Amino acid sequence: MIVNPLNSSTIAAGVDIGGTKIAVGLVDAHGEILAQRSFPTEASLGFERGVERIVRAIDECLAEVGSSCEFLEGVGVGCAGPVHPKHGTIDNPYTLPTWDGVDIVSPLRATFDRPAVLENDADAAAVGEAYFGAGRGARSVVMLTFGTGVGSGVLIDGRIYRGATDTHPELGHLPFDPAGPECYCGVRGCLESLASGTAISAAGKTAGFGDARGVFAALKAGDKQARAIVDRAISAVNTAAWTIQHSLLPERIILGGGIIDEHYNLFADAVRKAVENATLNPRGCTDVQQARLGNLAGIVGAAQCLRIAQ
Amino acid sequence: MIVNPLNSSTIAAGVDIGGTKIAVGLVDAHGEILAQRSFPTEASLGFERGVERIVRAIDECLAEVGSSCEFLEGVGVGCAGPVHPKHGTIDNPYTLPTWDGVDIVSPLRATFDRPAVLENDADAAAVGEAYFGAGRGARSVVMLTFGTGVGSGVLIDGRIYRGATDTHPELGHLPFDPAGPECYCGVRGCLESLASGTAISAAGKTAGFGDARGVFAALKAGDKQARAIVDRAISAVNTAAWTIQHSLLPERIILGGGIIDEHYNLFADAVRKAVENATLNPRGCTDVQQARLGNLAGIVGAAQCLRIAQ
Repeated sequence: MIVNPLNSSTIAAGVDIGGTKIAVGLVDAHGEILAQRSFPTEASLGFERGVERIVRAIDECLAEVGSSCEFLEGVGVGCAGPVHPKHGTIDNPYTLPTWDGVDIVSPLRATFDRPAVLENDADAAAVGEAYFGAGRGARSVVMLTFGTGVGSGVLIDGRIYRGATDTHPELGHLPFDPAGPECYCGVRGCLESLASGTAISAAGKTAGFGDARGVFAALKAGDKQARAIVDRAISAVNTAAWTIQHSLLPERIILGGGIIDEHYNLFADAVRKAVENATLNPRGCTDVQQARLGNLAGIVGAAQCLRIAQ
Repeated sequence: MIVNPLNSSTIAAGVDIGGTKIAVGLVDAHGEILAQRSFPTEASLGFERGVERIVRAIDECLAEVGSSCEFLEGVGVGCAGPVHPKHGTIDNPYTLPTWDGVDIVSPLRATFDRPAVLENDADAAAVGEAYFGAGRGARSVVMLTFGTGVGSGVLIDGRIYRGATDTHPELGHLPFDPAGPECYCGVRGCLESLASGTAISAAGKTAGFGDARGVFAALKAGDKQARAIVDRAISAVNTAAWTIQHSLLPERIILGGGIIDEHYNLFADAVRKAVENATLNPRGCTDVQQARLGNLAGIVGAAQCLRIAQ
């Protein structure tokens, strides 16, 4: 008889694949990470090499906690989109060159002889926060992540909300200002083009502040131009929150990402204002919270995606 | 032994309550109306009187088809909101004066000794269209109704989408133009304030066209001011469609209501343009159709709400 060497009842592997870095971890049923590894993605070295390194990292983590793949529930993968959860395929020539139409689920399933699932990384992070972070206790959650872009994940009754053809809705591309910057999504002045780190940096560069950090430093020093750049971003966040209140109407809005780490109150106030002014919605039906798991939401959420898929 | 006198396997009553009129019908499992009645709402005469007349109308319909309440599946009610489906209560002092905090489900349940449910009228109409009209074959449906206001209903996997506290999201109040007309929802320039019949009429009145009909007549005659009013409405519809594509991402968008009956192509083109330009969504994932059931969507949908609730 093989005895599970861990007191923890179950462990699942969570894999968080980004354009720069892949992070792998073993996650218990309480969302605790028992062991983790990370390494550069180097997508251009080819997909097979990527899978090999993910498998090796999971094996190393299992060895570290004194376990083996007999005790693994399975592998959940969150990956920078576009991905196709239903088919387990990644289709992202943008940040994962050569990983184009590749099936990541089948080799992981075959190697470990365990279930495997694939989700969009923003959805995986939202699942992590919803189950083990800022979303606990809420029936429906919208998470917005303000970083290089504006990522979004929507959970309804503990499940990832999927649109037509199971595609992930992109709240980062809600349209607000037809006179705003052009975006690859097809409109001018979407949320991402006004309020992402990239957008604030671009406006800051033009205005001589260097980058987003420079804009916020100048704002603190009372600079009017910096105030205008931040106001434009904050106004977009306010309108995004209003839109979310009148389309998805979640119980909780979670804000995360690099900019939020430093400027949560500024962004949260804009969201709260929209929620409070929405007279058609019941008072107090939605609250706002800051993401709690940071970069680990990806691993924890990917592992949990495996569990909620079963 | 009581023999069901109808060949039709089952019949449910659908009740559509508006500020002006109440329509009642018996609906079979194929969405066919077997008998119907309608009468003025006269809400100010009191809620008890309203319930009495609804009960009498259902009894008359049952008698007309040679059936009786033994063969009734139950009663589904669609009512002008705010309503609370979970509690079966109507809370609409705006268009149903004196019907304030009233429980309509309990007396109907007691009278017929059958299940009864209450839904928002826009949701009931969307259910009708989704199951028996323009939504057939689609897994997820957003219906927008352009009349006095802009009503909305969202169905995901055949179920009414509910937001926080089970409240119905109000897509008619998506925010688009901060310089637009003020709305009771709390923002300026929401979809309803730009593209409803009331909004087009108000703009038409100011410009000397009388009402919405006058605006469309002047547009046909090549009037530039009428073109500007309609363009503003159409631009709001285009932005609404983009927003819906990046938040709910339904398989089908259904357009209905008085203005759509006469100007469907104008509005549908604006929706299609948004769907086609949304480069982040899979090509062809969403289509647009005109509502097919007209005013009967309310009765048919209310009856179907009873069925899908069970």
